[in-house]
Amino acid sequence: MTASKMPLNEPTLQHQLQSLINSKTKPIGSLGKLEDIALQIGLAQNSLKPRLVNPCIIVFAADHGIVTEGVSAYPQDVTFQMVMNFLNNGAGINVFSRQHGISLYIVDAGVNHDFPANKDLINAKIAKGTKNFLYEPAMSLEQLQQCFEEGRKSIQRLNECNIVGFGEMGIGNTSSASMIMSALCNIDIDKCVGRGAGLTDIQLKNKVDILKKAMSKYNKIDSPEKVLMTFGGFEIVQMCAAMLEAYEKNMLIMIDGFIASSAFLAAYKINPAIKKHAIFCHLSDEHAHVDLLNYLNAKPILSLNMRLGEGTGCALAYPIIESAVRFLTEMSTFESAGIANKN
Amino acid sequence: MTASKMPLNEPTLQHQLQSLINSKTKPIGSLGKLEDIALQIGLAQNSLKPRLVNPCIIVFAADHGIVTEGVSAYPQDVTFQMVMNFLNNGAGINVFSRQHGISLYIVDAGVNHDFPANKDLINAKIAKGTKNFLYEPAMSLEQLQQCFEEGRKSIQRLNECNIVGFGEMGIGNTSSASMIMSALCNIDIDKCVGRGAGLTDIQLKNKVDILKKAMSKYNKIDSPEKVLMTFGGFEIVQMCAAMLEAYEKNMLIMIDGFIASSAFLAAYKINPAIKKHAIFCHLSDEHAHVDLLNYLNAKPILSLNMRLGEGTGCALAYPIIESAVRFLTEMSTFESAGIANKN
Repeated sequence: MTASKMPLNEPTLQHQLQSLINSKTKPIGSLGKLEDIALQIGLAQNSLKPRLVNPCIIVFAADHGIVTEGVSAYPQDVTFQMVMNFLNNGAGINVFSRQHGISLYIVDAGVNHDFPANKDLINAKIAKGTKNFLYEPAMSLEQLQQCFEEGRKSIQRLNECNIVGFGEMGIGNTSSASMIMSALCNIDIDKCVGRGAGLTDIQLKNKVDILKKAMSKYNKIDSPEKVLMTFGGFEIVQMCAAMLEAYEKNMLIMIDGFIASSAFLAAYKINPAIKKHAIFCHLSDEHAHVDLLNYLNAKPILSLNMRLGEGTGCALAYPIIESAVRFLTEMSTFESAGIANKN
Repeated sequence: MTASKMPLNEPTLQHQLQSLINSKTKPIGSLGKLEDIALQIGLAQNSLKPRLVNPCIIVFAADHGIVTEGVSAYPQDVTFQMVMNFLNNGAGINVFSRQHGISLYIVDAGVNHDFPANKDLINAKIAKGTKNFLYEPAMSLEQLQQCFEEGRKSIQRLNECNIVGFGEMGIGNTSSASMIMSALCNIDIDKCVGRGAGLTDIQLKNKVDILKKAMSKYNKIDSPEKVLMTFGGFEIVQMCAAMLEAYEKNMLIMIDGFIASSAFLAAYKINPAIKKHAIFCHLSDEHAHVDLLNYLNAKPILSLNMRLGEGTGCALAYPIIESAVRFLTEMSTFESAGIANKN
C-alpha cells in the first residue's frame, strides 16, 4: 500500500512521533516506559506537541449492601467519615493532589449518610447504598441508568481538563470489584478476591465463601451493564460512565487500582477503543489486581505495594506522565544540540 | 531489656514514627513503599516531622581510556557534547530537574575536552580521561586522592540542601562500573556486563572479552580504594566521595542507576552506615543492575526500563520521595478526623 492510499493518518503520526522520540539526545529506547507513554499521548491527542491541561481527579463515594455479610475490615460509617476527611483536605488523595496541582472533585454517588450542605461535595446520590447482592441485584435498571447519567455529568462539569484520574471510597467495594472481574473475565471468583482494606485469614475465607455463594445465584450474566447492575456499586458504575464520557471527550484517563480497574474493565467491554486513552497508574497490592491488569494486557507505571484507593495511584503517577510529555516537547535533539549519534 | 536500659533512642523514635504512620487515615500498610521511605527519612533526620530542603542533583562527567577498545556504542566526543547539552538545558536531566524544582550542578571530573569558560560548569578536572585499564591502572594514587577531595568539595558547595542525587555522563563508564561490581561483589565479570548505551550482540561479546582480559591482569584487588583506582573513572570516584561526604553531612542520598550504584557500592564498602541514608531510585534496564541491587539488598522505587543515567532516575523518583514525607506530615489521623478504625 502506498502512503497516499493509507486510510488514516495514524500510521504517519506514529512514525513521526517515534522519529521525534528517537531524535532526542539519549540512547534509543533509554527512557523506557516514558517513551511508550509519550507515544500513546501523542497519538491520543493527534499531535507532535501534546500537552496536559488542568489535571483532575474525581473521587466517587458510595456504600454497599453486601457489607452486612462481614466482608470488610472497617465499619460502613468509614465511607461517610472519609468523605468528610476529603472535604477537610486531610486524606492521602488530598495531600498528593495538592502536591501536584491536581484539582480534586468529590462525588457522593450513594453514601449512607445525610451530609450537611457543602459546596465542595457534588451530589449524585442514587440511594443510601446498594442492595445486598447476596439476595438481590445491587441496583435497579433505573438506578443503573441514573448512575450512567451522573457519571457522564461528572466529566461535563470539568473545565478545560484533558487528563482525568478516578478514585473511589466505599467500604465493601472490593467485593463488587471482585464480582465484576470474575463475571467479565470469566475467572473463578475465588481467584478474584483479596484482603481489601486488611482482612485476617478467617475474614478473608468468609469473604470468599460469601462471594462464591452470591455468584452461584446469578447464572452467566455477561453483559457489562447487567454485571454492573447486579454487583454495583453506585461509585463503580458512575466511574465506568465517567471513563466512557472522558474518552468521548478525547481526554486521557488515569486508571488507579483494583476497583478503578474493575470499572475500566466494564467500560472497555462497552467500548474497547477506550484503551487507547487509558494510562494504568499502578499495580495495587490487592491480590487480584495483577491478574486483572494481565487480562487487560496493561503495564502499570508504578508498583509500590500500595492499596489505598481514592485515586492515590493516579496522583503519584501523574508527575511521571508529565515527564513523558516534557521529554518529548522540551529535550533537545542530536541535531539541535550538535551531538554525534551512535557509531 | 526494659525501655530505660535501651542504649540508643533510635528504637523509641522508630516506634514513634511507626505509630504516626499507622495513625494516618488509611488502612495499616496501605501506602506500601511510601511508608518505608517515610520511616527511613524520619530516622535519618531524627525527626517525627522530616522535611526535604533544596533538593539537588550533581552530574559528574569524565572520559575513559578503555573506550579505545570499542566497548561503547557512541564516540568519546559525546561526553563533552552532552556536557554542553547539560549547560544549555537540553538534556533529559535538565527537563526532569526543572519539572521538580531540583537544582542541577554539572561537574567536569575529567572530560577529554577544553571547555570554554562557563560559570555553570564546575571545574574538577583530574585529567583528560583515565588511562586504559586493559594495560595499566585507570589513575594514579595521587589522582585517586584528588578525586576524593573534589568529590567531597562538590557537596560542601551545596547550600542548605538535605537531599542530593547523583548522575553521571561518561562514554565507556558502564565498563568501569562492571569491573567495580565484579571486584567488590566477587561476581564473575561476564555476569556484570551489559549493553550500556546500546551495543549489538557482537559489540557486547567484544566488551565482555575485553573486560575479562582486563580483569585477569589484576589479581584479587578487593580494597574499594584500590578497585576505584584501577578501574576508574574520575566521575565514579568523585561520586563515591560525594556520597560519603553527603552521609557525613546527614543528607539523604538518591542513588540513580547502574553506574551510580557502583559508586555507592564502593562508598558502602568504605562506610556501611551510609546505607541508612541511601534511597534507591530506580531499577535500570542495564543488565547487571538488578544483581547489584540484590547484592546491596536494595529495593528501588521505580522500574521503568530506563537506562539513560545523568541522574534521571533520581529526578523521576524525587516526587515520590516527597510524597512519602508529605503523607507523614500532612495527612490527618483517625483521631483528628474523627474516623472509626478497624473493626
